[in-house]
Amino acid sequence: MSSTAGQVICCKAAVAWEAGKPLVIEEVEVAPPQAMEVRLKILFTSLCHTDVYFWEAKGQTPLFPRIFGHEAGGIVESVGEGVTDLKPGDHVLPVFTGECKECRHCKSEESNMCDLLRINTDRGVMLNDGKSRFSIRGQPIYHFVGTSTFSEYTVVHVGCVAKINPAAPLDKVCVLSCGISTGLGATLNVAKPKKGSSVAIFGLGAVGLAAAEGARIAGASRIIGVDLNSNRFDEAKKFGVTEFVNPKDHNKPVQEVIAEMTNGGVDRSVECTGSVNAMISAFECVHDGWGVAVLVGVPNKDDSFKTHPMNVLNERTLKGTFFGNYKPRSDLPSVVEKYMNKELELEKFITHEVPFSEINKAFEYMLSGAGLRCIIRMGA
Amino acid sequence: MSSTAGQVICCKAAVAWEAGKPLVIEEVEVAPPQAMEVRLKILFTSLCHTDVYFWEAKGQTPLFPRIFGHEAGGIVESVGEGVTDLKPGDHVLPVFTGECKECRHCKSEESNMCDLLRINTDRGVMLNDGKSRFSIRGQPIYHFVGTSTFSEYTVVHVGCVAKINPAAPLDKVCVLSCGISTGLGATLNVAKPKKGSSVAIFGLGAVGLAAAEGARIAGASRIIGVDLNSNRFDEAKKFGVTEFVNPKDHNKPVQEVIAEMTNGGVDRSVECTGSVNAMISAFECVHDGWGVAVLVGVPNKDDSFKTHPMNVLNERTLKGTFFGNYKPRSDLPSVVEKYMNKELELEKFITHEVPFSEINKAFEYMLSGAGLRCIIRMGA
Repeated sequence: MSSTAGQVICCKAAVAWEAGKPLVIEEVEVAPPQAMEVRLKILFTSLCHTDVYFWEAKGQTPLFPRIFGHEAGGIVESVGEGVTDLKPGDHVLPVFTGECKECRHCKSEESNMCDLLRINTDRGVMLNDGKSRFSIRGQPIYHFVGTSTFSEYTVVHVGCVAKINPAAPLDKVCVLSCGISTGLGATLNVAKPKKGSSVAIFGLGAVGLAAAEGARIAGASRIIGVDLNSNRFDEAKKFGVTEFVNPKDHNKPVQEVIAEMTNGGVDRSVECTGSVNAMISAFECVHDGWGVAVLVGVPNKDDSFKTHPMNVLNERTLKGTFFGNYKPRSDLPSVVEKYMNKELELEKFITHEVPFSEINKAFEYMLSGAGLRCIIRMGA
Repeated sequence: MSSTAGQVICCKAAVAWEAGKPLVIEEVEVAPPQAMEVRLKILFTSLCHTDVYFWEAKGQTPLFPRIFGHEAGGIVESVGEGVTDLKPGDHVLPVFTGECKECRHCKSEESNMCDLLRINTDRGVMLNDGKSRFSIRGQPIYHFVGTSTFSEYTVVHVGCVAKINPAAPLDKVCVLSCGISTGLGATLNVAKPKKGSSVAIFGLGAVGLAAAEGARIAGASRIIGVDLNSNRFDEAKKFGVTEFVNPKDHNKPVQEVIAEMTNGGVDRSVECTGSVNAMISAFECVHDGWGVAVLVGVPNKDDSFKTHPMNVLNERTLKGTFFGNYKPRSDLPSVVEKYMNKELELEKFITHEVPFSEINKAFEYMLSGAGLRCIIRMGA
């Protein structure tokens, strides 16, 4: 039992006081975990587009002041009542979506969309009592997707915490909390390309490159990267991308370009942009008879996916995935092991690193499109 | 070797001289089979919507005079050069689509859309020489989908002929040539419902009821039939349908009605109408996390399948199928065995029977919506 268990912990957190304004490092009070909650000491966190999207708060109901952050690695400091799966000292990845292990989704082999702990971007409080565990001089600070990892300590529902191999370096595997697992799982768990097959990846950001990494691991022989930014191709080669198509270089739809390159279409495609037109292209570029297209990118509220139904009838499959179909607690430990046994390469995703005091630089890197993942070193 | 081998055979055929006009029983000459062709003596044929659709020739390039018919059972009379898989006397089902066993589709475990012999409704001649094997006093009569079973003898590519158990009654298993296998396979091979699951079937014609039969065989516990004609429910109960929804009885979309009935959606759905709105409902009525919707019905040329991409992202799957994903030569024999071992019930699909001389009655039954399948007894 740590000496802080049951006590309020005072520590540093990066607080977003207003939409789009630089975060401010503040002294916050972090309450002890309640029933089925754990308090984590965060050692490393990284920045994902979703943090930036909700920090900008465009087209959403803003919820401030708030502590963002959801890709991270840490160590259990203390556990609340009823927590038996975790103990102080365990190495863990907090996850923005959970696995209660009791609901229909958790009991289904096919789903990871837990009824109790599925991502909720509007809720800024803990499930147990509808309150925040963070405060500054008595003022509550909202949580973000149940993780709020831009804090030296945070409180998370036990269902949103994956216990991992303590030998795994947290400054690397922290990126498996969200984007990298999302892309990797989209390919390995959902598209499931066979050895020697062809795969098209739409969008060569971190998620798309993780999808390409999945195709590389699966032994795909052709990995066609599609992006509107041709500068991304060089970087993409490191992730197994063998060919590149910039839709802007062609005066016909990209699905036709890909069909011509591949004698009728690719075996699999993975869409990681969130653009509905890219989703349609990703579906229509797979081969009839056996092609499978997987959608990963989150669309806009008013988008409509449109295709001629004959494209479906001709034995194409369209699937969507959420967090790469990984169940956070059951499956993330094995993804960490893929890194440990050198099957999965994570270093190439990590292009920047900053101390916690310079967290706003991570936002600048992402907003300027520089690099893939910026690791934020806590306590520095 | 039969005495007719290598000779022109004169026999009766029902010829469609003009679109939409009653067929006329004529004496036709049937040329011997060429390389990779077989000549079949047809014993039983049945009428399918597709025959009627191309006989009406609305919205297509009409091709007349033509001999329709593609659901049938018969016996091999003689074989052309290079045919080694079949011999005179074999019991067979001719099929409107083929399996060359050489192309990428035939070699793929996932596809049955043979590059060489995939259905072609515009071609009225044989592949080998681009000519017809049927003539009346020297005038060629066009083939239909390579089968033309409304004739006592017909010539078919060997790749479109399934050799079956000779003990199987051809007046029953002939219906497996097209519609019944299409619906059955859509459920058993593509939707693959688990025992105890819920399945919605859109459209309770012969194909939809065959899909329901598949769900019954798979052990689904709830089979929800959806049709605009409530009169079909009584008949549908025989095929395992447990509940019925007529969209006209509700003032909200049928996918919402089904979601309410099933705590969020069915596990599987199969669309057998060809209406694009039914396709969209069939997709949107499956449960998030694990739901699979399978499209079977053939849409109109200008249809557009539209849905919000979040419906896909929430881990729903949309799949299309053609001929129930059965490879005609490899898989149909085992479907016949399902009937032989009483797993599959075919009698309930057969609601009418007429002698060949009254084939136009079969068209009348279908046009008036009476019954499911009308068996036409050749040589009578």
